[in-house]
Amino acid sequence: MRTVVPVSGAEPKTRLSPVLTADERREFTEAMLSDVVAALDAAGRLPDVVSTAPIACDVPVTVDERGLDALVNDRLDAADGRLAVVMADLPLLTAETVDRLFAPDTDVVLAPGLGGGTNAIVSRHERFRVDYHGVSIRDHRQRAQKVDATLTEVDSRRLAIDIDELDDLAELLVHGDGAATDWLRDAGFELVVDEGRVGVARD
Amino acid sequence: MRTVVPVSGAEPKTRLSPVLTADERREFTEAMLSDVVAALDAAGRLPDVVSTAPIACDVPVTVDERGLDALVNDRLDAADGRLAVVMADLPLLTAETVDRLFAPDTDVVLAPGLGGGTNAIVSRHERFRVDYHGVSIRDHRQRAQKVDATLTEVDSRRLAIDIDELDDLAELLVHGDGAATDWLRDAGFELVVDEGRVGVARD
Repeated sequence: MRTVVPVSGAEPKTRLSPVLTADERREFTEAMLSDVVAALDAAGRLPDVVSTAPIACDVPVTVDERGLDALVNDRLDAADGRLAVVMADLPLLTAETVDRLFAPDTDVVLAPGLGGGTNAIVSRHERFRVDYHGVSIRDHRQRAQKVDATLTEVDSRRLAIDIDELDDLAELLVHGDGAATDWLRDAGFELVVDEGRVGVARD
Repeated sequence: MRTVVPVSGAEPKTRLSPVLTADERREFTEAMLSDVVAALDAAGRLPDVVSTAPIACDVPVTVDERGLDALVNDRLDAADGRLAVVMADLPLLTAETVDRLFAPDTDVVLAPGLGGGTNAIVSRHERFRVDYHGVSIRDHRQRAQKVDATLTEVDSRRLAIDIDELDDLAELLVHGDGAATDWLRDAGFELVVDEGRVGVARD
């Protein structure tokens, strides 16, 4: 089974624009992608990276300017529904967590993201297709049911935390040890502790 | 090994006060506690509930007005460091996830919460003690290392998501199926879908 890592390469991580310039967001995106590819590779799942714009990566990158749904569903079509999809902004991913994603023996495996997203999918069902808009985890559950696919959801924090917003950077500084975390530290980000959850600041 | 569930019963969930009255926050806290107790019970780990103020619960509640660190560390002292601690605001917890928490054969098992917290601990080391202030997951890692305890961290979204803030309620509405989710729906909360992560609104 192929594993595809889709990257939004054109204007990545716009919700981080209050704290990162456009060039920095690109560099940070590349660092996160590098962490994801490394985790997949270590688990024996070297992926195909597909980006909406050229992006630096240690593995070959296919540029596909269409939206996420089209590029994933085309690949599902071509592979009779046998495909894994792992998002590029999961820098806490480890090989062990990748193994847990592929372990369940069901037609479809979903890894929920924070905020209703779907951060990873393993499909082994010829009629399963994706729709990443809205509360996608709910839609993907319904689609699995609709095509009579057996379904598992993986309970993983490392697969749930996609890095989109300022608060997410704190998760990397607390738990990360890869390229994206190094990049953040080099860029001057550090943890700020006050009441409640930890935050981040840039020096 | 005993399992303790500490509850902040006096003025619970103040960060939800923009959307819930004091009475509602108490009811919601009791619903979350009920979900946590049910998950632990289903896994054969019926807990001791310890609250800083009287609170309604299906199992007996010990009232202990001291802070979290004191009440947990006293119990660790009394049990030669053999104790499990599971927070009361983890309504997505399931028996399967409880099993994963207790499975690792190490002196200490930690379940990180979002924002640097420590949402569950299994201690089997006589010198391990807790300190929930600041970035507690980092402190607990250091404490385990300091007493030469072997350490595992559980990679679980259901153990990571503690319900403190408005956005956290969305996680319950997307993923929950217990008493706390029912309570939220009855109180008029529903998902709101816009760009990015899903939010909640109250009708």
